[in-house]
This record gives sequence, C-alpha cells and structure tokens, in this order.
Amino acid sequence: MATTSETNAGSNLQVDFVVQYSFGDVDQPKAIEQLQKLLQTLAGVGLQTEVRQGDEASLLIFVRASKNQLKRAVYRSRVRDWLYGIRHAEPEPADAIDPDNETEAERLRVIEHMITLPTHEGGAGITPQHGEWKNVMAVFPLHDQETNGQWMREWSQKTFLSEDDLDQIRNKFGESVGFYFSFLQAYFRFLIFPAVFGFGCWFLLGGYSIIYAIVNSLWCIIFVEYWKRQEVDLRCRWQTKGVSAVQTKRRQFKPEKEVRDESTGEVRGVFPATKRMQRQLLQIPFALLAATALGVIIATCFAIEIFIAELYNGPLKSYLVFIPTILVSALVPTMSAVLVSIATKLNDYENHETNDAYDVALTQKVFVINFMTSYLPVFLTAFVYVPFASRIVPYLDVFRLTVRPFVSKEHSNAKRSNFQIDPARLRNQVIYFTVTAQIVGLAMETVVPYIKQHAFRKYKAYNKKRNGKAEGNGEKDSPERPLHVVFDDPAEEVKFLTRVRNEVELPEYEVTDDLREMCIQFGYLALFSPVWPLVPCSFFANNWVELRSDFFKICNEFRRPTPLRSDTIGPWLDTLGFLSWTGSITSAALVYMFSGNAQQGPNGEPTDIKGWALLLSIFFSEHLYLAIQYVVQVSMIKLEPTNARKERAERYLMRKRYLESTLSAQNDDETPANAFEVPGLSRAALEEEARQSTLQETDPAERFWMRQQGWKESAQVGTGIIQAQTSGTTKKQQ
Amino acid sequence: MATTSETNAGSNLQVDFVVQYSFGDVDQPKAIEQLQKLLQTLAGVGLQTEVRQGDEASLLIFVRASKNQLKRAVYRSRVRDWLYGIRHAEPEPADAIDPDNETEAERLRVIEHMITLPTHEGGAGITPQHGEWKNVMAVFPLHDQETNGQWMREWSQKTFLSEDDLDQIRNKFGESVGFYFSFLQAYFRFLIFPAVFGFGCWFLLGGYSIIYAIVNSLWCIIFVEYWKRQEVDLRCRWQTKGVSAVQTKRRQFKPEKEVRDESTGEVRGVFPATKRMQRQLLQIPFALLAATALGVIIATCFAIEIFIAELYNGPLKSYLVFIPTILVSALVPTMSAVLVSIATKLNDYENHETNDAYDVALTQKVFVINFMTSYLPVFLTAFVYVPFASRIVPYLDVFRLTVRPFVSKEHSNAKRSNFQIDPARLRNQVIYFTVTAQIVGLAMETVVPYIKQHAFRKYKAYNKKRNGKAEGNGEKDSPERPLHVVFDDPAEEVKFLTRVRNEVELPEYEVTDDLREMCIQFGYLALFSPVWPLVPCSFFANNWVELRSDFFKICNEFRRPTPLRSDTIGPWLDTLGFLSWTGSITSAALVYMFSGNAQQGPNGEPTDIKGWALLLSIFFSEHLYLAIQYVVQVSMIKLEPTNARKERAERYLMRKRYLESTLSAQNDDETPANAFEVPGLSRAALEEEARQSTLQETDPAERFWMRQQGWKESAQVGTGIIQAQTSGTTKKQQ
Repeated sequence: MATTSETNAGSNLQVDFVVQYSFGDVDQPKAIEQLQKLLQTLAGVGLQTEVRQGDEASLLIFVRASKNQLKRAVYRSRVRDWLYGIRHAEPEPADAIDPDNETEAERLRVIEHMITLPTHEGGAGITPQHGEWKNVMAVFPLHDQETNGQWMREWSQKTFLSEDDLDQIRNKFGESVGFYFSFLQAYFRFLIFPAVFGFGCWFLLGGYSIIYAIVNSLWCIIFVEYWKRQEVDLRCRWQTKGVSAVQTKRRQFKPEKEVRDESTGEVRGVFPATKRMQRQLLQIPFALLAATALGVIIATCFAIEIFIAELYNGPLKSYLVFIPTILVSALVPTMSAVLVSIATKLNDYENHETNDAYDVALTQKVFVINFMTSYLPVFLTAFVYVPFASRIVPYLDVFRLTVRPFVSKEHSNAKRSNFQIDPARLRNQVIYFTVTAQIVGLAMETVVPYIKQHAFRKYKAYNKKRNGKAEGNGEKDSPERPLHVVFDDPAEEVKFLTRVRNEVELPEYEVTDDLREMCIQFGYLALFSPVWPLVPCSFFANNWVELRSDFFKICNEFRRPTPLRSDTIGPWLDTLGFLSWTGSITSAALVYMFSGNAQQGPNGEPTDIKGWALLLSIFFSEHLYLAIQYVVQVSMIKLEPTNARKERAERYLMRKRYLESTLSAQNDDETPANAFEVPGLSRAALEEEARQSTLQETDPAERFWMRQQGWKESAQVGTGIIQAQTSGTTKKQQ
Repeated sequence: MATTSETNAGSNLQVDFVVQYSFGDVDQPKAIEQLQKLLQTLAGVGLQTEVRQGDEASLLIFVRASKNQLKRAVYRSRVRDWLYGIRHAEPEPADAIDPDNETEAERLRVIEHMITLPTHEGGAGITPQHGEWKNVMAVFPLHDQETNGQWMREWSQKTFLSEDDLDQIRNKFGESVGFYFSFLQAYFRFLIFPAVFGFGCWFLLGGYSIIYAIVNSLWCIIFVEYWKRQEVDLRCRWQTKGVSAVQTKRRQFKPEKEVRDESTGEVRGVFPATKRMQRQLLQIPFALLAATALGVIIATCFAIEIFIAELYNGPLKSYLVFIPTILVSALVPTMSAVLVSIATKLNDYENHETNDAYDVALTQKVFVINFMTSYLPVFLTAFVYVPFASRIVPYLDVFRLTVRPFVSKEHSNAKRSNFQIDPARLRNQVIYFTVTAQIVGLAMETVVPYIKQHAFRKYKAYNKKRNGKAEGNGEKDSPERPLHVVFDDPAEEVKFLTRVRNEVELPEYEVTDDLREMCIQFGYLALFSPVWPLVPCSFFANNWVELRSDFFKICNEFRRPTPLRSDTIGPWLDTLGFLSWTGSITSAALVYMFSGNAQQGPNGEPTDIKGWALLLSIFFSEHLYLAIQYVVQVSMIKLEPTNARKERAERYLMRKRYLESTLSAQNDDETPANAFEVPGLSRAALEEEARQSTLQETDPAERFWMRQQGWKESAQVGTGIIQAQTSGTTKKQQ
C-alpha cells in the first residue's frame, strides 16, 4: 500500500465521471450480471469504462466519453436548448464542435446526461439508487485539485472576486454554484456601504437611530432589486435564460393516471394540480405546528433564563444560568430535525412533478422553521420582554415553585419589587446572533467536518491495521463487510485511487444550504440591525471569510457537484424580498419603541408607548417601503443590464439579416411601383375602352375601382378637384 | 345630391383604407405636387388608389391592396412575428397565403403597416399629421355596417357573449378592442356572484357587514388573478404573446444623441434612461399638486354643502342647496382638464421612445386625477365627516360670515347645538356614485354624442342650403372654406360617399377611456361596497348595457379603429390590483367604524372608535389580504390555461420532430455500442500487444485507460473483484 512509482495524484487521468457500484447486498451472480449490464449500457451510449476496486463491497467504474460521442451529445443538448429558446442562434453542426473548447461544466453536464437521461431522450437511463439501478450508489465527477488549490491561494490575497473569477467558478462547477458565489460576492460588495454608514451611525447616533433605520431599509430594497437585475444579467451572460423550461421529471413522482395528450399524442403521467393544492393545504397546520412547537420551546427557555438571571438569587446561580442555554441548544435542533422530517414527508406527499418544484416547496416549508429558530428569540426580547416584562415577570413565580427549597422567602420578595428590565439585553442578543453565532456557524460548517473527516480516515486506517493483525480471530462485528481489503492497485495508480476512494465517501453538496445561511444572515440585517448598527460591519468581515471557506468546503468536504444549470437563486429571492419587507415593519417598531431612551419608566421599560402611535408608524413605514420599492423596481427595469443588451443586439442582428434576405428576395421579382400602371399608350387606349364597357356591367365595387387606373389618373382627378375648390375660394376672396 | 341608382350603401366597395388629404391651408401647386407624391408613394408599395372629393378642403383617397402585394406584406409581417417569437411555427411561404382566409384585423393591420411603416421597414412611410405628410389628416378603415348591425341585434338578445363572439370582435377590431370586450365580459360574468351574495347580505345583514366585506375582498383578489390568467389564455389564443416586443418608435421622440450600436452597427437615436427618470421625478410634485388642487375644491364644496344642508337655516335654503353641486360640477371638470393638460405636457417632456411606454406613463398620471375625483368625496364622508364632524363643523362658521345678513343670530346658535351627523349620508353618497352617476355616465358617453352628431349634421345641411341661397351676398364669415360644396359624385356612389364623409368627421376611438371607466367602477366595488351591498347588483345591470352601448359607440360615434395588437389591458391591470388592495384597508376601516350602529354618540358619530383598534384591524386585514393574494396567485399559476397548454403542446411537437430527426440522423452513421469493442480476435491479439507496449511509454492517463479495452474486459475485471470479495466474505461467514 506504499506509494511507489511517481504519477501526479492531482491529475484526474482524463476521468470524466466515477460510478460507484455496490455489490454488498446482492447475490454474487446477480451482482455480476447487473455489472455487465451496467457496463454494456454505458458503452452503448459511447462511454469508455475502466473498473477498479472501491471499498470492500463496491467497485469504482471510471467513465470517459469518446470525443465523437461527446461532440454529438453536446450538439444534441444545444439543439434542445435552441428549441427551448435558451440559445438564440442555431447551434453549429456536431462536427464543428471541439469538445476541448467547451467549458468543463458543459462537458460534465452533457456526460452526466448521457449517463442518466432516459433512453428515449438519448441517454443510458441510469438512475442511481433507484429501481433497476439501485446498486449504482453514486455518479460524480472528480475534483480538479490543482485548479482548486490555485484559486484558494489567489483569492486569499484579494478582497473581491472579479467577474472573470465568477465565470471560472461557473465553468468549473456549473451555473447553480456560480449563482451562489455571484450572490455572495454581490452581497459582500453591497455590504461596504451599510458597514461604513452603520459604523458612523453607531459612533455618532448610537442604536435605534431613525436615520440608520431608513437608510438600512432603502439599502435592502436596492440590494434585492439590484440582485434581481443581476440575475437577469448573469442569465444572459451564462446563457441560461429560461433554463427551467428543460426540466427532467422527478423519479419519485407518482402519476395518478396516464393521459394521452390529444395534440402531441404523447402518453404521460399526470397528477392533477387541484389535488396537489389540496394536499398543500396541509402546509397551514404544519406552519402552525412548527411555530407553536418551536415557539413554546424558545419562549419557555427564555422565561427560565429571565427568571434565573434576574429574579433568582438562590444558590448555584452561577451554574444555573447555563440551564436555558443548554436546553435551547438541545431542544431546538432536535425539534427542528423532527419538523424538517415532517416537512420532507409532507413534501413527498405533495408529489411534485419536477425536482425544481420539489425543492422550491421544501425550501418554503423549511423556511418557516428557520425563521422561528433564527428570529423568534430576538422578537421575544424586543416585543414581549421589554414592553410587557413588568406585567409578565410576576407570573414567572411558577418556576419559583420548583426552586423553592433553595430560596428564602424574604429574599425573593425583596428581589421581585426590585425587578429591572435589562435594557442592554436586546442589544446583547443581537450581538450574539450577528457576531458570535456567525463565527460558531462558520466553524461548525467548515472546520469541524474537516477535522471529523481526517479523524475518521485515521480511525479507519488504524482499524484496518488492527483487523489485519486480528484476522482469523473470528471477530464478527461486521460479518457482511470484511474489514481487511487488500487493494490490488497498479503501483502508479495508488495515489490516484486512494484519493478517489476518499472522495467517494464524502457527502453530496447542496447549494441551497449555503444560500439559506446567507438569507438568514440578511434577515438579521433587515430586521434588527437598527438595534446595533455595527451588524453590517460584522457581516462584512464574516462574508469575506465565508466566501473562501465555502469554496474550501466544496473542494474538500464534499464530492464535486455535478454541474447544474440554473437561472436564479430560486425561492431564496422571494425570501430576501419578504425579509426586507418585514424589516420595514420591525425597524419602525424598534425605532419608535426604543429611540427615546430618556423616557424609560422605573423598571426600565419605555413608558409612553402608545398603541395607536406604534401602529401608525408601522403603517407609514410599511407603505412608504412598498411605494419606494415599486419606484425602485420600475426604475431598475428601465436600466437594461449589459449582457441583456448584448443579447438583444445579437437577436436583433439575426432578425435583421433574415428580414433583409426575405425583403431582397421579394424586391427581385417585382417592381411594385409600376404594378398598377399602364405599360404603353396603345394598350392604355384599349383598356380604357374595356373599362368603360365594364363600368356598365360588373358589380359596384369593381365599377368603383375601375374609374381611375393607376396613381397618375388618381392624381389627375385629385388635381382637378383641388383646382376647382381652391379657385372657387380664390374667386370668392377676390 | 339626391340618391338615384340603387347600390348597397352598407358595403365598403372593397375599400381597405381611406386617406383624408387636406389641401385647405397650402398653396394650390404645392398641394397638387404633394398629392401626386402621396399617390405615387402609395402605388409604390403596391396599393391601388381612387380619389374622390371630401369636404370643401379635402380629398378622400380610397386605398385597396393588390392581392399579391398583400400576400407579401402578410408574409413579411409573419416572418417578423416569428423572429420576435410571437409565432411559433415558421410562416408558410407568401404564395401559400390566401389573404381572404386571414382575419380582417390582420389584413387591415398589415395594410396600415404598408402605409405607415418607414420605408426601410418595407412601408410607404406616411406619417399622418406629421412632418412631410402633415396634410394627410387621417388614415382609417371603414365600418362594416352590415356586420355591426347584425351583432347588435344578436347581442341584445343574450346575456353573455360567447368565446366565439369575442373572437369575432377581435377579428374585426383587433386584439386591443378584443381585450377590452373580453375584460368587460369576464367582469360582467364575475359580478353575478357578488350581486347575488350582496343582495342576500343586504337583505339579511344590512350594510357594514363583516361577512360581506371579507367575501368582497376575496372576490376582488380572485377576479384580478383570474383576469391575469385569462390574459395569458387570450394571448395564446390570439397569438399575441410578447407582441409588445415589436414596437414602433414614437414619431415625437427626440433622441438626445445618435449612437452607433457596436454590435449591430445600427445608428439609432438614444435618450438616456437615467435622464428620463430624473424628468419623471416631476410626477411627485404633479401628484401632490393634483391631489391638493382637487382636494381643496372637493373639500370646500363638501364643507359648503354640509353647512347649507345641516347648519344653515336662513332664507332661500331650498335653492342654496344646489350651490355646492353646481360648484363641483363646474370646478372639478375644469380643474381636471387643466391637470390632464399638465400631465400630457409632463409626459411629452419625459420623451418616451415608444407609443406603449408613452400611454402607460400618461395613464399613471391621469389615474391620480381620476382617483381623486372619483373616490375623494366618499373618503371625506367616511373618514373625515363622520368621525370628526362634531369637531370640524363649528369651524364652518366661516361661511356664516358670508350669509350673516340672512340668518338671525339666535336661530343659528340654536341650530349649532342641535347639529346631528347624518348617518345615511355615506350610504346615499355611495348610492349616488354607483347608481345615479353610472346611469348619467352612460348617457353622457353614448346618447348625448349621438344626438349631438345628428344635430350637427342637420345643422350643416341646413347651413349649406342657406348658404346656397345666400351665395354671392359676400358673406365672409369663413372666407377660407366656402360652404357651398357641390359634390360631383357618380350617382351610384352618392350614398357610399355620404357615409364615408360622415365617418371622416368622427373622432378617433381610444380603448383606454373605456377601460378607465370600468376600472373606476371596479374601484367603488372594492373600496366602498360594504357600505351598501347592493353595489354589485347595480353594476351587474349597468354592465349588461355598457357592453352593448360601448359596441354601439364604437360603431356609430367613432371612426373604425385601426386594429392594434395587444397582449394585455395594460397599466389598468396594475390599477385593478392597487384598488383591490386599497379595498382591503378601507373595508376594514369602514366595518370597524360603522358596523356597531348601536354605539353612536349623541351627535350621531360613533363614539368608541379607538385609534389602535382601528389601525390594528387595518393592519390585520391588509396583511391577511396580501397573504391570501399570494396563495391565490401561486395556485393560479399552477392551473395552466387551456390555450397556453395547447400552445405548449404545439411547441413540444415541433421540438420533438426536430430532435427526432437529429437523433435518427446520428444513429444512422454509427453504432456506438460497438465503438470501443474489438472487432475480431486476431486484431484483438494484435492490439493487446500494442497496448502492452504502450503501457510502458505513454502518459499516465493513456496507460490508465489502456488497461481494459471495451466494456467486456471491464466486466471481466469487475467480476473478478466481486468474486474475490464476496467469496472472501462467504469464507469468513462460514
């Protein structure tokens, strides 16, 4: 197992895709038969294969597309795009395509389609982990370690990624990941302004400044609308406009009935939209359930926390203060996991037809959970604790019953009357969520998995060694899978195959998780940043790291994602809009309630909050927000993005060329100017005669049109009338 | 001038268009030269012409397209549509087009394009009332009197127009008018439900019923969203999807600079969008000005009215009560006209590039004026008069100063303390606007112009006769235009030409005015119908007549409109949405303020209106509205309209055919299944040898891919590994 001959382990040896074939849980003859079928099918669509050993119960099938087959597949894919209106120009013929000139993303996408598309669409019809091919565990490309490393080094030395860098990401990982990084980059660059402005406001005006709140809301509107426009731009630059039209069906989709489409003659499974909508009504109880379950947990822990921190004064206080934190950390993720699994079941039940629709629906459901876990604690502090604490806190005596043994009665009574709302609590909470939690999150998603992964590999290697020694001792802890795999690799491939085996074990990357993280972050900015105007500064610093660490994560902690095309960041765009809108409400409320620090009551609560004034400021703020949003939207539409203009120009050119050719073709064969003119005098005389005769006979319309022949006669008649009329006038005037 | 020979005056004698050429205000030789040029130009694009006398100072040029030229123009127009993505299938060649099979709307539109399009786009470049062609006063088609009359008779006997009827309207008058009638029909049909439900509510619950308000809001949401979907459907049925892409430039557009487009090489006038936006900022002061000017007038008249009706008790009261009505009737239309002319100037100043953009911008500005004049009086009654009257009314003593001579002091004092808010005022006002004003409006727009028109014709005929007698008396009241026109018409054309001369004098039809009327009507329903639930009944009856009278109006009181294509009712769609949204606010406020009739104070005003409760109900109502609207929108999107599905099926078929042909072409020339297989044994042996040798030499990737040749070898290797592994396991298990 030692490395011997020297080959470049970073190179992928021209491997396009790796297919992991598992034979652990089927009979040997069946496994062999299925393997043969798999290889034959792959060869059938023009893919070259090499088989190597995977782990104990799987094979690695390396796949490479032959140049000719690839050319054709690329051509076919482009024709399809053209027919669906994604490409504007008819694609050049297959022979003119040089696969080496195409982007890696297109190459990989096309090959993945060759492997997975159904046979009637020209693919091999291999469906990993599903149906006939359930032994095919995974189909994925290999990381390009050299380029990845190089990019990491380059990016760590600059502040902003260039357009070119983003294009490179898209070329390597596909448009879906490209859109995420573009969004992150746009968001990061946009954060400069609120970071600087927020710092100024914090320095000069402190928290709850109305100026900061207005500017922040405006910034949110402009950013969201800017990003919508940017999506249009990227869509044109990356030629993915309308790409969602070419959607492949979800394999799990269960049609209710087979319907033969009358016009196309195609038989296809149909699930009525109305029935799906009825099922979707379950979302309402689900949202209520999620809100209640999480709300109860969070509110209870919150109440315990307040009780311990501000009322309880018994023994062990310094330890007890950790109880609510521990409870929240334990209960909220558990409940979230339960709710997410319910949401997934609900989503499955809704039986969506395409993967996109499925993802959008799931995102919406999960967003309810995210919203509760992320923002509810701050909402509770701002809109329940601060205004109502003095009324609610006495009821917290419920907890006192449980701790009665530890508290002396007098002590507690004394404390109660002294109860003071902690005015800094809200700010501290916002700081916790926007600084501490962000850093912890970064560590949890990047550093921890990396350490875990390495530890796991070490453990595996150690275990293997130990088992190698202990072999024959009759250990039965995993009877199906012997732990002593002797890899019979060619010496020069050892490094390469080790790397591939490691990549196989990595999980699949989901760009939606990263997008969610960013949207939730944006939410803190939109909803609560007036509390502490340094929030955007924190996010600005955080996102510089985030961009790099996410890239690092994709390269090292996940299998390389198959390039997916996309023309948007999807449902998250709506989420951004929703959060920004809600921000206009919370900002107004926060500023109204907390900006006049002087008018605090004896317990630290703001005394003169008037219901109608609060609601009126919310009403104005919200409608002002909506009006400005409308204006910004309308203005943005009128500023056409560069690439959209370019695309329009291209289409215009194509049209012009075509129109010119049809026009010239027509002008050649007739000179219409003379179409109604009489060619010669003699003939004119003849026709005049004929006309006079027909005037008597034919129908009125013919007679009408026969009176003047050619424009010259019309002109004569007209001249006559003009002369008659004007001379009449002149005569009269004289 | 008497009618002699009998021809059918209703028939149009195959005339496609009439061009009115005026020669009244130019020199005779110039007029003749220009006429010749006009006729030559028309002939140049293949149009046949006949000239007849118009009135004293104009000619009528009758235009007919030759069959061949029309074929070509239709083909060219369809090619353009195809290139812009409006048609899906490539149009059949020009020779295959039978112009008689096409709709009249297409025929007329194409001929109009032949006349008016610039020469480089294949038209004659005639621009009525503009530049070189300023003597061309009008270009319009003739009414098809026979069909119009027949339709009027048919429609007066049925309740609903069928889809076919709407298609007929579209075929005759173009999509723009077709969309209006479809909208009116959809709105009319949708009114059944609120009419029935409203009647029930009125009977059982009276006004201000929360149930009615909720149902009404829901109905508004559903109607607006239904109509959006219906637009998609109509757009597919009438093939006008994306028709706004083919827009002709406004002639009045003044480019700031000429820019040569780098990619297309086309030089075109450009006006920067940012500069236009700056100019559009003037809309804000304009809106404020309009609101203030109209607001002051309406509020003042309102105050005077209250003063006279409820405070004043002096002499002449029965006459004085009419003063405010007279003032409103005089001042509001005057001010509106002034404001509209300002809006038009502003709009001109904004320098829009296309006619569509111009119309949209103007509609938005005029809507502010309409909103004020239509709804402000009711707003004032509901939200100022009723809640605040007892506080405001004393200030109305200002008016008392002016009438002091007539009122005895004691009398007025006694009256003041007795002041009672008239609780029925709001209801009466709503009834006035939704019943009386509708009927008056109908009469004003249909009956009055009809009578005026006939009276004017009679007057003209009378005048002509009188002048004929008085000729030579040296009357100089209109020296430029002699009133004694002797029409030298061929006897059989007299009737026809008389009709044409009448049509020339009619104004141009603007579909946007009719749409505005309907939207304003919808506004009363959305905003105020909870006051008096019979509103939808009134509108239902009104709109049955409206649909017929509008058609009558188009046929008899306007020139036949040139068919315009359109894929929407335009900016009015947004207006509907806006009104429906505002309705959710006003309904909540009205129901909260007035539903508890029992709790009225001594002066008749509701006593316990609490600011926070009012605002809270508005807040909930509005957000509930928006949430439901979102759900309805999402659901509607999922229900695909019939014609959209058909269209999709057609495109699918086209794609499938094309893809199949490319696929089969490829399969012919290669059988990829054997691409990597070794054809014969002997050759295999040879290659094996070659492979072994290359394994030593070439680069690692080549060596990697050389190890297994063809899928069969891969299968063998894989089988070997599986056997080794599984037998190992089996051994161990034993």
